[in-house]
Amino acid sequence: MTPRIALDAMSGDHGPSIVIHAALQILSEQDDLHLILVGDEKKIKQILGHQSTSVMQRLSIHHAEQVVEMDDKPSYALRNKRESSMRLAINLVKLGQADACVSAGNTGALMATARYVLKTLPGIDRPAIITALPNMQGKSTHLLDLGANVDVSSEHLFQFAVMGTVLTQAVDNLEKPRIGLLNIGQEEIKGNECVKEAAKLLTACEGINYIGFVEGDEIYKGSVDVVVCDGFVGNVCLKTTEGVAKMISHYVKESFTQNWWTRFAALISLPIIKNLRQKIDPRRYNGASLLGLRGIVIKSHGSADVLSFHHAIKEAVIEVQKNVPSQISHQLANLLNERRRVE
Amino acid sequence: MTPRIALDAMSGDHGPSIVIHAALQILSEQDDLHLILVGDEKKIKQILGHQSTSVMQRLSIHHAEQVVEMDDKPSYALRNKRESSMRLAINLVKLGQADACVSAGNTGALMATARYVLKTLPGIDRPAIITALPNMQGKSTHLLDLGANVDVSSEHLFQFAVMGTVLTQAVDNLEKPRIGLLNIGQEEIKGNECVKEAAKLLTACEGINYIGFVEGDEIYKGSVDVVVCDGFVGNVCLKTTEGVAKMISHYVKESFTQNWWTRFAALISLPIIKNLRQKIDPRRYNGASLLGLRGIVIKSHGSADVLSFHHAIKEAVIEVQKNVPSQISHQLANLLNERRRVE
Repeated sequence: MTPRIALDAMSGDHGPSIVIHAALQILSEQDDLHLILVGDEKKIKQILGHQSTSVMQRLSIHHAEQVVEMDDKPSYALRNKRESSMRLAINLVKLGQADACVSAGNTGALMATARYVLKTLPGIDRPAIITALPNMQGKSTHLLDLGANVDVSSEHLFQFAVMGTVLTQAVDNLEKPRIGLLNIGQEEIKGNECVKEAAKLLTACEGINYIGFVEGDEIYKGSVDVVVCDGFVGNVCLKTTEGVAKMISHYVKESFTQNWWTRFAALISLPIIKNLRQKIDPRRYNGASLLGLRGIVIKSHGSADVLSFHHAIKEAVIEVQKNVPSQISHQLANLLNERRRVE
Repeated sequence: MTPRIALDAMSGDHGPSIVIHAALQILSEQDDLHLILVGDEKKIKQILGHQSTSVMQRLSIHHAEQVVEMDDKPSYALRNKRESSMRLAINLVKLGQADACVSAGNTGALMATARYVLKTLPGIDRPAIITALPNMQGKSTHLLDLGANVDVSSEHLFQFAVMGTVLTQAVDNLEKPRIGLLNIGQEEIKGNECVKEAAKLLTACEGINYIGFVEGDEIYKGSVDVVVCDGFVGNVCLKTTEGVAKMISHYVKESFTQNWWTRFAALISLPIIKNLRQKIDPRRYNGASLLGLRGIVIKSHGSADVLSFHHAIKEAVIEVQKNVPSQISHQLANLLNERRRVE
């Protein structure tokens, strides 16, 4: 079956142009794909211009009157933006008219709306946000939760571990993804009660390849595939990463533009810098998944460019092909049964 | 008065050689300084070799039988390492024979021992660990707590803000350091209860220049001088920073050593890379302070080299000169009085 992805064409910092160009690009690469642009029909048509029949057969427009602004509070968006591109894109998933949706809109509103419209999967108390980050092995490490849940219980962390396992099995084709609990030391004595309790649950669960506590630096080493933490810690971790990377990039630019000699060196080093950039380009990691819902919702970075948004769409396609939500449901039921048998 | 600093010469990953060479280096730069090397007298004398009278007048040795190992649990070190270089160095501070001590030993044992021997300052419930991190403005941002307190109350976060204010006033000569609370969004609605409550306490306190919530990336922007958080979050933040920096540095090295062309580019770029390194060299930020104690204790990174340990000693000297512990005590009493007057 051809994956049908609804794209919230209006949200994000840069408006519909980015989304539309990303859509056209991915359609030119993948035949077996149908995209639905959700948003202001007039604006979308204007940007779209004239396209070939082969493209237009795989692209439709779904009109939306409203837009969720980047600073709309979740509760406000829920109540007052029922005709927004974000809400309607999620509705299409709910109605079975799309298999997934992608939005660069504000995370709080997207999570609240998706949760309200789609509901959580059976057995999942809280949806979580997960993203891939680059690591030293040239592969990626997934981190969750990234901010959906500020206060969590050990049971929630356990569920996050299950969701992380399923997602990386699907997306990275890992058979037994290594799951680590983010903590402040590898010794058993360290950490707060919730993390310690979650460690017990995970150790007892044969279906999860739990490797123990990991510290913040291990996310980037490649010694673990999925790092589980609460949404407060995960969000700080993600933003810290952004901050460090931006600072280093700032100093690199500054150092290479100081005088004629450094500019010459920069010229010579250009292919190296490009190669380097490609390896840790955050755009290649764009597309966080809202896991635990009865439907696939992908959150793109608000400031995404065409390449970034393109990656977010690709993430949606893979999750559709691998049927991630039903896998999560299935796996969770199995693991909870296993736990009951042991108890 | 000449600052007298006790150096735990035995702890850390690399043993006494690093500490002794750092000591000799700083004595050659600063006249008005007395250092006490605490550790195995025989080994210390061996490494020290023959030194000039001018050096030996400002350097003494205090023998210690034991060493706290990097994996000794805090409780074990407290009970069974009473004659360790770490314990004796802290004792010298307690006895008034040293004005501060510096150790590269394990953080848990150092904090437990320092707290047991020195006790906390009046009004301070929990000591905290603080360090400086580089930012985009070419200055530094201080972050606390880094792991001493896993579970904190809003009152503890308030006390951390006071300690951070005093330290940066002393060390960075800031008149009104900008204090931010680490959170996952700048909107009032976000974050957990403890952080929200702390925000109220800080907003109501005129003596603290509280600028509001900050996110993880702002640590590196230079828009805030002190970032306050609990020890779990702070430690993850610090380790994440290390991880990202190491990964980038790994890819830089890899990119510049691929073939003859990239090696040539590396050669051309050498002065730039050096310049860059200097700006964000973690060694220049070595020396975390254990704040809130009745004495000055500086924790050096376990794997510190001579330059790193040298920086940690310098940090100790500045805190002695500025009399940080009594400043904290004084400032806290003032602010609590102010709060009582308002209530």
